[in-house]
Amino acid sequence: MVTNAAATLNLMLAITVPTPGGPEALALAEVPDPTLAPDEVLLDVVAAGVNRADLLQRQGHYPPPPGASAYLGLECSGRVAAVGADVTGWAVGDEACALLAGGGYAARVAVPAGQLLPVPAGVSLVDAAALPEVACTVWSNVFMTAALAPGEWLLVHGGSSGIGTMAIQLAHALGAHVAVTAGSAEKLEVCRSLGAEVLVNYRAEDFVEAVKAATDGAGVDVILDNMGAKYLARNVDALAAYGRLVVIGLQGGTRAELDLGVLLRKRASVAATSLRARPAAEKAAIVAAVREHVWPLVASGAVRPIVHARMPLAQAADAHRLLESSTHIGKVLLTV
Amino acid sequence: MVTNAAATLNLMLAITVPTPGGPEALALAEVPDPTLAPDEVLLDVVAAGVNRADLLQRQGHYPPPPGASAYLGLECSGRVAAVGADVTGWAVGDEACALLAGGGYAARVAVPAGQLLPVPAGVSLVDAAALPEVACTVWSNVFMTAALAPGEWLLVHGGSSGIGTMAIQLAHALGAHVAVTAGSAEKLEVCRSLGAEVLVNYRAEDFVEAVKAATDGAGVDVILDNMGAKYLARNVDALAAYGRLVVIGLQGGTRAELDLGVLLRKRASVAATSLRARPAAEKAAIVAAVREHVWPLVASGAVRPIVHARMPLAQAADAHRLLESSTHIGKVLLTV
Repeated sequence: MVTNAAATLNLMLAITVPTPGGPEALALAEVPDPTLAPDEVLLDVVAAGVNRADLLQRQGHYPPPPGASAYLGLECSGRVAAVGADVTGWAVGDEACALLAGGGYAARVAVPAGQLLPVPAGVSLVDAAALPEVACTVWSNVFMTAALAPGEWLLVHGGSSGIGTMAIQLAHALGAHVAVTAGSAEKLEVCRSLGAEVLVNYRAEDFVEAVKAATDGAGVDVILDNMGAKYLARNVDALAAYGRLVVIGLQGGTRAELDLGVLLRKRASVAATSLRARPAAEKAAIVAAVREHVWPLVASGAVRPIVHARMPLAQAADAHRLLESSTHIGKVLLTV
Repeated sequence: MVTNAAATLNLMLAITVPTPGGPEALALAEVPDPTLAPDEVLLDVVAAGVNRADLLQRQGHYPPPPGASAYLGLECSGRVAAVGADVTGWAVGDEACALLAGGGYAARVAVPAGQLLPVPAGVSLVDAAALPEVACTVWSNVFMTAALAPGEWLLVHGGSSGIGTMAIQLAHALGAHVAVTAGSAEKLEVCRSLGAEVLVNYRAEDFVEAVKAATDGAGVDVILDNMGAKYLARNVDALAAYGRLVVIGLQGGTRAELDLGVLLRKRASVAATSLRARPAAEKAAIVAAVREHVWPLVASGAVRPIVHARMPLAQAADAHRLLESSTHIGKVLLTV
């Protein structure tokens, strides 16, 4: 019997993490090509978005969900290189961007077809990599889970982040009022230019007082939070009646005291979500909603990808250092 | 100018609370008739439901919301005695039951027309007083806020209470599975007879273990909780992925530690609500939903009022002692 696996195994470049650790743990290496399932599309990656979750995965704190690529990278753009047997609507050569469960930091990635999106009109193929994760995160949390309505107030913590810049633009475009927190006047100025009306430098001001002053004491209807425990009590204080706090990050810890009496008097709620671990069917539903509701706003120019830097894949460590410095505004991309 | 206010002022009997305190603080007295606003209906009260919130109001801890009757009583049944100028659909002599912001412990009460319901077929006019508060509370929280779906699991704490007996029956009738906690075998047997499948005596068993054992480790989809702080961590533990905890009572305190990491991994939520303080328009929407979704189930016999005792209004203090003893199963009514 002749074994010819080696002959049919193609290799690609990818960023690997031989040993979890700091940015220096990232290593460019040759690895086997992804295998393509019948419901998947194979993309030749052109660019990949860098997300804070990638930093956690690099440190060994955020393992990929079962079945996902072992490599970093939760979103990318690229060209269709192959199409699984059960997939319709995509053809070899199509340009696309995609929400990934992992694997964006590589030359090729296999994606469930339901997680692919066309490149919106007016956006370059590279910059399209900045959109899937933030658009899906903001749409699913702020609009699907928290049901932000026109005329309501949204408070976005970390307003100048990739998530933040998308949340400001989407909420503003859909007729909501936006308050943000950020750590510098420069970041706040970008938030203002994107549509934020209330700008809070968290190093100098209390966001609870600021949003109450802006809303005649009522508070905000929805909060998109990345701080978790550190902000829980103040977030609940900042909520209006029927307010909805959605926690999508735990940068300020996980455990904190909740005053259910305050929550009950406001008839308010606290939800916490993550996107990566959701089943593929749910991701597909979110991607479909983003295509329906967000993509037209991108095509019209009302919402645009805010890209801080585009760096070669081989400089992934520098990209991670940049995110860890928190000096960026918007998204950092790796180009392949 | 002749002042004839005294000549037109009618008096009625009501339970008053001259000085907040224990059950003995309740006093039957003659008080002025309620005034009737153009959007209200005046009811001659036949029976009033006793709710745990009444005990708090008697103690001075739960003042009526602005504009509400000063007297106790959040639900009643009776006959229409007068109809406000703007009200359509109700006529003098009609039998009805009503969700109140207060004032049920009295011979007459003025009710916003949107909070009236017809007496369901097969229910006596007295026992109809057992329905409005529990039906509106359960429908608005379990079905509107938490969106319990057929096939999902509901955990009801205090399964033998008025709220609990309604929640079990409604969830069971609509195709959900029900787990309950209660404090005695007798109470649990009533819960079982109403449709509960998992019965937890909280004095002897851990409800987290019990519901996980019953759901192959998955946990429950919705929890209706009256304990607040005391159960918060265990409730979050007992939730399944996408679980929704709804807190409607704080009998176990208000402040407790919340682990947002657990909530995030489950993509779960914690909401807390109260019915009494909601604006009349919202109560009317809830009452309309109850009439549409719950009343047909009552008329068909799938859901029925569970009445523990019917006592004369003058024995309101005994009714409060009964609720405080927690020996009752279902509702306690006062008859006028």
